[in-house]
Amino acid sequence: MFPSDAVCVGHLSPDLDSVAASIAACELYGGTPAATGAFNSETRFALKHWGVQGPQALEDLRRDEAGGRGMKFLLIDFQQTTQLHPSIAHHEVVGVIDHHALQSQTVVTSKAIPVQIKPWGSASAIVAFEFFSKKLQPKRSTMGLMLSAILSDTLNLRSPTTTSWDRKMAHRLAEETGYQSLDELASLQFKAKSEELAAMDPEDLIANDLKVFELDGKSFQGKLAISVIETTDTEPVLARVESLRSTMAKMKAHKKVEIMLVFVVDIVRLKSVAIVLGDDERSLVMASFSGAKEKTSQLIDIGPRVSRKSDMVPPITKAIVDDEWSSHRSSHREL
Amino acid sequence: MFPSDAVCVGHLSPDLDSVAASIAACELYGGTPAATGAFNSETRFALKHWGVQGPQALEDLRRDEAGGRGMKFLLIDFQQTTQLHPSIAHHEVVGVIDHHALQSQTVVTSKAIPVQIKPWGSASAIVAFEFFSKKLQPKRSTMGLMLSAILSDTLNLRSPTTTSWDRKMAHRLAEETGYQSLDELASLQFKAKSEELAAMDPEDLIANDLKVFELDGKSFQGKLAISVIETTDTEPVLARVESLRSTMAKMKAHKKVEIMLVFVVDIVRLKSVAIVLGDDERSLVMASFSGAKEKTSQLIDIGPRVSRKSDMVPPITKAIVDDEWSSHRSSHREL
Repeated sequence: MFPSDAVCVGHLSPDLDSVAASIAACELYGGTPAATGAFNSETRFALKHWGVQGPQALEDLRRDEAGGRGMKFLLIDFQQTTQLHPSIAHHEVVGVIDHHALQSQTVVTSKAIPVQIKPWGSASAIVAFEFFSKKLQPKRSTMGLMLSAILSDTLNLRSPTTTSWDRKMAHRLAEETGYQSLDELASLQFKAKSEELAAMDPEDLIANDLKVFELDGKSFQGKLAISVIETTDTEPVLARVESLRSTMAKMKAHKKVEIMLVFVVDIVRLKSVAIVLGDDERSLVMASFSGAKEKTSQLIDIGPRVSRKSDMVPPITKAIVDDEWSSHRSSHREL
Repeated sequence: MFPSDAVCVGHLSPDLDSVAASIAACELYGGTPAATGAFNSETRFALKHWGVQGPQALEDLRRDEAGGRGMKFLLIDFQQTTQLHPSIAHHEVVGVIDHHALQSQTVVTSKAIPVQIKPWGSASAIVAFEFFSKKLQPKRSTMGLMLSAILSDTLNLRSPTTTSWDRKMAHRLAEETGYQSLDELASLQFKAKSEELAAMDPEDLIANDLKVFELDGKSFQGKLAISVIETTDTEPVLARVESLRSTMAKMKAHKKVEIMLVFVVDIVRLKSVAIVLGDDERSLVMASFSGAKEKTSQLIDIGPRVSRKSDMVPPITKAIVDDEWSSHRSSHREL
């Protein structure tokens, strides 16, 4: 179904799932995986743990391939142009493997391309399923990496995005690799993910897992940046709220987004706190999440919501599309 | 992968492929097929030929189902909102099976849904493949209908959209149904398709296979309606060019589209003629199709191009996006 000579790339701000699924998809279909940015510490941990070489940076690959003319790209773990590496043109895109919703900035091609989206908890589970349903065995190291990626994206199979297929694939991969203690592996990964946060400057902390969306509501048309900081220990992150907020303000202006939100996700207790920048963001968060409580003027407790894809983007989209919040933008329009 | 209780619907101006694939997908996954408009004569011929009951009209189904609240829809053979039945809300869409390119008006959902797009010549070939790869046997009548649909959408496996999978599925379905003469079946269908054209008033002739696209170019943002009139005998259609053009002008205003094109496709000789309405359309057609020849001020011979999806939409999109034509719209902007 997919071409055998494509470069497999994940979204900007690559996470473990996009990296693992890119490597695995290239092993399955052929082609070369490429990295769209620096790896986070969880990804580095998993690559080392399973003895896998991380993909080459896309820029280097382009340079090596005589300017990268005629390169074809298989998009892994996304299909929004806002998450596409800026060097990739739409006509270079030859396929999509993803587990996210179609949204307003879907990549557009003039000819039909294969698109495979399954509403599962991780892209790696989709690629693992393709291997096993074709009765093909991935390399042991690739299986381990996919296992780590499924545990990462589904928060050890506890996120609301987790499906029975993620569980089946995780257990099958654990069995095939002989790695039985999923809890232990998840715990090691979460620790690796959390450890680097303390050393990160505020900008990296926010950019580490940031996605930009474009939404079109009655009184709001524009871009929304949603950053997620997943950690086993939220206290040290929340203690830095002042410096995080001033960095958010700078990034909001720099990225030309209308709304900037950061969610600090407790991946052990499975609950989150939103850091809000101003009245627009506060109003949007309060309107989006029923039961949300303002802890301070800067922090809103949104309770047991942990998945950007499943718990955050849908209610925020609904609040904007149905105009359930009061943005400055809308009050200006009413003048 | 797909829900078992959805209503399977094709695009507006339903054709044989969207109707056959809707019926077959509901047989495979469960659910109920529904019709989004009147069937064309080729579809009526194929339903009768294979003894298949045509799907109920969507409006009637909604009425029967207590106002249709809580209905879920699986989109078959499309994913553009411009081709979605107006009674269907985006949040009711639970899946997509299609063989077209992602374009700017893709249906948008807040949660991820399964999407299966393969760049094959027909949606029915995709559903047939799913049956056979699951080692399931469709009803004989459903297999016959899918066979007819593949022959219809691929112009008897001769359209440039035809892939080896369309051929494999057509031959497998022919074998399973015991219907060996594909040429004879295609010829009967083409005759059925062409026969009704003479009796149609100009509006029905144009609306019979019309799709609306939304494009975003440097000097053009707007809607484009592209109608295709497939026939074994183009003469009687082209003899009506005057009345077709005055109807095109009315429909262009009524549908609020910026560009309106009608292509008369000779499905025996595999070549087409464009009927153009004004300077914008003429400029766009001449810029899009290399070697195009103006036969009269109203007709442009575009040579061996027969597939809207593969031969027409891509070059037209390119001409608009790259601004290779001169529209009145653009000259107004330059003032």
